[in-house]
Amino acid sequence: MRDVYVIGIGMTHFGELWDTSFRDLFVEAALEAFGDANMDRLDSMYIGCMSGGLFVGQEHVGALLADYLGRVPIPTTRVETACASGGAAVRQAYLEVASGMSEVVLAGGVEKMTDSADVTAALATAADQEYEVYQGVTFPGLYALMARAHMHTYHTTREQLALVAVKNHHHGAMNSKTQFPFEITVEQVLASSMVADPLRLLDCSPVSDGAAAVILASEEVAKQAKGHPLVRVVASTQATGAMALHTRTDLTRLDTVEHSAQVAYQQAGITPDQVDVTEVHDCFTIAEICVMEALGYAEPGRAAALVEAGETRLGGSMPINTSGGLKSKGHPVGASGVAQVVELTIQLRREGGTRQVEGARIGLAQNMGGTGASSTVHILEGQA
Amino acid sequence: MRDVYVIGIGMTHFGELWDTSFRDLFVEAALEAFGDANMDRLDSMYIGCMSGGLFVGQEHVGALLADYLGRVPIPTTRVETACASGGAAVRQAYLEVASGMSEVVLAGGVEKMTDSADVTAALATAADQEYEVYQGVTFPGLYALMARAHMHTYHTTREQLALVAVKNHHHGAMNSKTQFPFEITVEQVLASSMVADPLRLLDCSPVSDGAAAVILASEEVAKQAKGHPLVRVVASTQATGAMALHTRTDLTRLDTVEHSAQVAYQQAGITPDQVDVTEVHDCFTIAEICVMEALGYAEPGRAAALVEAGETRLGGSMPINTSGGLKSKGHPVGASGVAQVVELTIQLRREGGTRQVEGARIGLAQNMGGTGASSTVHILEGQA
Repeated sequence: MRDVYVIGIGMTHFGELWDTSFRDLFVEAALEAFGDANMDRLDSMYIGCMSGGLFVGQEHVGALLADYLGRVPIPTTRVETACASGGAAVRQAYLEVASGMSEVVLAGGVEKMTDSADVTAALATAADQEYEVYQGVTFPGLYALMARAHMHTYHTTREQLALVAVKNHHHGAMNSKTQFPFEITVEQVLASSMVADPLRLLDCSPVSDGAAAVILASEEVAKQAKGHPLVRVVASTQATGAMALHTRTDLTRLDTVEHSAQVAYQQAGITPDQVDVTEVHDCFTIAEICVMEALGYAEPGRAAALVEAGETRLGGSMPINTSGGLKSKGHPVGASGVAQVVELTIQLRREGGTRQVEGARIGLAQNMGGTGASSTVHILEGQA
Repeated sequence: MRDVYVIGIGMTHFGELWDTSFRDLFVEAALEAFGDANMDRLDSMYIGCMSGGLFVGQEHVGALLADYLGRVPIPTTRVETACASGGAAVRQAYLEVASGMSEVVLAGGVEKMTDSADVTAALATAADQEYEVYQGVTFPGLYALMARAHMHTYHTTREQLALVAVKNHHHGAMNSKTQFPFEITVEQVLASSMVADPLRLLDCSPVSDGAAAVILASEEVAKQAKGHPLVRVVASTQATGAMALHTRTDLTRLDTVEHSAQVAYQQAGITPDQVDVTEVHDCFTIAEICVMEALGYAEPGRAAALVEAGETRLGGSMPINTSGGLKSKGHPVGASGVAQVVELTIQLRREGGTRQVEGARIGLAQNMGGTGASSTVHILEGQA
């Protein structure tokens, strides 16, 4: 297994993109990534997409996108691990370059969710159809159960949850590609519509259209791609866990995130405190809290206090979701995991502008499927 | 890249399996594969599934199946290339073992199509949604256009198409796991209901439930797995091509099959005439004809004559679809590409019983998505 580098990044604006089709979203992100890499070579592609079938009536996603990008006959495979599909695409691309099979592989992610589908029902297919969805549960409901359990066990407060959203909107307001590029207050979160008690509208990531793409390459090729400091992928992991919430021993813990993170730290030869900048899967505010604890950034039950103390805010000791996260940036589900790697690359190249984390050298991206039955972790190292 | 071996195979009966759920189908096939391998080790899984969302309301397929197989936390990723999803799963598993990342990887495929979905509409999502499906076209209609073009250009006859189905049912009648294990006649094909002129019901593969699994391993592990002659994967390729039929220059040719086959022959260091036993994607009778030509088994326009001469029948010079093919065995779309590798492994181990190809040493499996916008080819070599 050889070294793998990120040589190109691209993403569309995230939001309600009425004028751009599913295929065009991907093409736009991919072309931006080629422009960023300043080269044109491509051996293979992986596309993260959760449900082309349910959202836009389109499966056979890989061939479609290879065709419309003008890249046939290269092998193109769509991968799906629910909302972690983007992370899985990055991992497959990493594996193909690391193996020596290919020199340059694109990992893309795309979802078009606002066209016409029953989005809540489509997203619910990421839960256990026979044991959870059949009972009428939806994702806000499932994460609300996790939030209640966390509040009960650790006395996490409603305000602390709100602070996650406030912080991510603060970051997102500095990112020109976010769906909701504005600040919000704790009071606004607490006054927003109830979705599933205790989660309110402003605790929830939005329904979004969007695409992202990263181009991974071998060291030899990466050194020819001029224009940006090199960013190396030093860990790429994935784990699965209990699908249905009722089969878990502790609703507040994310075993798959713990496992994928532990293996990633081993691969990278680092400890959690060495990470300078982090993107996590904040599909709901409670998710960011639970993920922080699973990543080892805080002892169980201690993450919310760190959020409250401003440690996860830009300028704090462990800035999280400088992109705006899923909450402010938007969450086109198949694209989110790839967009996380886009943000880390920006940070590790030191190209983050007003939202740059000073001296960022190591970044970690954590992407999650369902209520955590899938998790991917990528650790990147900048050479800026 | 190191050598990769097939050490275990399993598959369910294919058919209308009312008593077995989506997840149980996969578990049954996977457990059979572990029993066949006579070992229990597993590092990772890939699952071919075309549309869990549209067929059974279940995405997040990888985590679900890892959970219900009792194999968390191993990484499990669902891959999708429409009806070539099974072939893509085998290719990803091959890559992961060949790379040295993992020692033992399971490639599974599963689809449950008969539960409740609008199957024709769900399958149509493998075509171009904006340019083909929007016009009302379905897969029988698309393949009918290809058949008409082949008949027009090469004077392929209606009877020659029927002979493909007759031959595959002849083989399938010898396979205890086929959906339709009985012989049919040319007269029956020609008298069956018209589906899309010139294709009749008995030209079409059926709607099926089913799952298949193969376990791939490194040489070191393979040599510990006693009980069966070794089978080595000597080529694993994939190609993409024009998605919509109207964008192709020649409706009778399958560019992706040609490309994936040519690269596979190079990888394996063989020529087409060295293949002893072949499984191809006969979703419609015309598909088998076009694939034969794309594989280089016949010059363009000459395949049908070989079928008529009995060359592709068991006992002929190039037996094709000894399993019964998609036509007789059934076509649970995500499983079909994996089931092809199951059949080749049986043949190359010389465990085919009454349908054994004498002296089979090299086998080729070709799996196709849509009207051919994706194709995978695997070449296996037996050491029996």
